[in-house]
Amino acid sequence: MMNEDSFLEIINTYFQLDREKNKQILVSRGDDCCLVEAGKIALSSDLFLEDVHFSRKYFGPKDIGYKALAVNLSDLAACGASPLFFMLNLIWPTSLSLDYAKLMFQSMADLAYDHQLTLVGGDLSRGDKLGLCITIAGQIETNFVFRQQAKPGDLVFVVGNIGLSRVGLEILEKNKTTSDFPKSVWAHLRPTPLVKAGKLLASWVKSMLDVSDGIAKDIQRLLPSGLGVKLRQQLPLDEEIFRFAQTNQLDPLCLALEGGEDYALMGVIEPNTFEQIKTLVPQVWILGEVIEQQGLFYKDKKLEVIGFDHFANDC
Amino acid sequence: MMNEDSFLEIINTYFQLDREKNKQILVSRGDDCCLVEAGKIALSSDLFLEDVHFSRKYFGPKDIGYKALAVNLSDLAACGASPLFFMLNLIWPTSLSLDYAKLMFQSMADLAYDHQLTLVGGDLSRGDKLGLCITIAGQIETNFVFRQQAKPGDLVFVVGNIGLSRVGLEILEKNKTTSDFPKSVWAHLRPTPLVKAGKLLASWVKSMLDVSDGIAKDIQRLLPSGLGVKLRQQLPLDEEIFRFAQTNQLDPLCLALEGGEDYALMGVIEPNTFEQIKTLVPQVWILGEVIEQQGLFYKDKKLEVIGFDHFANDC
Repeated sequence: MMNEDSFLEIINTYFQLDREKNKQILVSRGDDCCLVEAGKIALSSDLFLEDVHFSRKYFGPKDIGYKALAVNLSDLAACGASPLFFMLNLIWPTSLSLDYAKLMFQSMADLAYDHQLTLVGGDLSRGDKLGLCITIAGQIETNFVFRQQAKPGDLVFVVGNIGLSRVGLEILEKNKTTSDFPKSVWAHLRPTPLVKAGKLLASWVKSMLDVSDGIAKDIQRLLPSGLGVKLRQQLPLDEEIFRFAQTNQLDPLCLALEGGEDYALMGVIEPNTFEQIKTLVPQVWILGEVIEQQGLFYKDKKLEVIGFDHFANDC
Repeated sequence: MMNEDSFLEIINTYFQLDREKNKQILVSRGDDCCLVEAGKIALSSDLFLEDVHFSRKYFGPKDIGYKALAVNLSDLAACGASPLFFMLNLIWPTSLSLDYAKLMFQSMADLAYDHQLTLVGGDLSRGDKLGLCITIAGQIETNFVFRQQAKPGDLVFVVGNIGLSRVGLEILEKNKTTSDFPKSVWAHLRPTPLVKAGKLLASWVKSMLDVSDGIAKDIQRLLPSGLGVKLRQQLPLDEEIFRFAQTNQLDPLCLALEGGEDYALMGVIEPNTFEQIKTLVPQVWILGEVIEQQGLFYKDKKLEVIGFDHFANDC
């Protein structure tokens, strides 16, 4: 029978409390509040809703459980925080089976385990559509990484792929053959939260964020108002970006910069620290140089790139 | 125009950051995470969803904004915590106006202000129905109050009214004249979170919780398994309880014990501390004595009281 108790039983099976590993979690689930000996903690909270953030047409329960937590982990990565605990609020349509819930929790629990993340509380309610609201907390071990610290001459770096998740979404939405664009589809369903890279970079960068709405939109959040980026001429875009752009008569660069749900890390560094950073995080690459003009510039031309919400084929 | 920016603007108007008052909030809204210098914090998270937890037929926007936060504050009260900050995740139907949002935020902001509670982050998404998911955190100044610490002979106390909110729900749902049951209707729309009482009681009680699913159900969560309560013969039930019970051929005691969404505080004390507690929190009253038999007993008879989900007229 599907009721609150059967849900709690499943949750307790998948998310076992391991006090030895989490000495800071003084009281976990089962009381009115959890209790945490926290020190300095970074917190973030996100909604992950059916037919807004994902469609059950092509997101399986394991994808949903994974991604709901992954996008929250990505916020911690952007601040250089070490994952500590999370709270799960679940809106559950009674038409879904408990087996569906088990698959969802399984992939979420696996990801939580990988990051030594404890589930400390939350809430459960019925609803018409599936929804997850996660609040996550991480420990700040070195320093908290802010946004909007940059000056002209600094470099903007990226860790991770850009544009792939957007291509994946297009393929999935339009019912195209997913095996033609495996990396894109995977990037959309199972984005990797770059927690380790975020922690390594935290002591070196001037500012950082995780790219959730695409480079074009998020660059405005990364840089102080009035500053922009002169893009490098060669950017390491994936082969699938070029192939998708060609088939759909799109500009591959604009496609990649519009992106959306990339969950790459993007940040600002002083030019002379790049070599050291490259040693720490070999997959880092340079997007361009900070300049005193707002916007993204490529070969001296300002790009008119539209944000994630609108998929335009000219820019 | 209704978009994310217009929402954020309203939120910034109603929830102003006052750094002087909140020195522990090192980074607030606008970054990937907020940053808190926390020490020991108590956290809780709740869903407040349209047509599950409230109906817009009789909940105005101010009631919704107030109650969504109040029920979270009540969780802090139950642990004896001082409110510190909260995160708001909002699911918003585009059919609702920005004026509706303003009214909702206004009452929420007033309640937050009363409790010196800072809004540090959250998320916003469209959705078919209005929904709020709040995560709240409080500081533990003395000690965290657990559940399930009790032994036979201890007393179970209550602070606040029981059963009124349930009567209010019935009146509102059945379109009855609300002015006949003003206290009940108010108890349902605007429950008072007993934060001050919770903090005062924290050092004196053996255990405590906030009564959200009714005394009958929550007593099982308060006491260790195998223990129950022998109820006092005279309980201070409100006049509206007796009147509603009479009109609807219900037993007033059962009605009050079934209750639901009371947000009263219920806890366990040693008998010899009652006088001191009464001096601290004059509105405290005794529900009964802890006995070595599970359940609620009245005049030596075990009551078969059903929980909040089912409204039964016999017990």
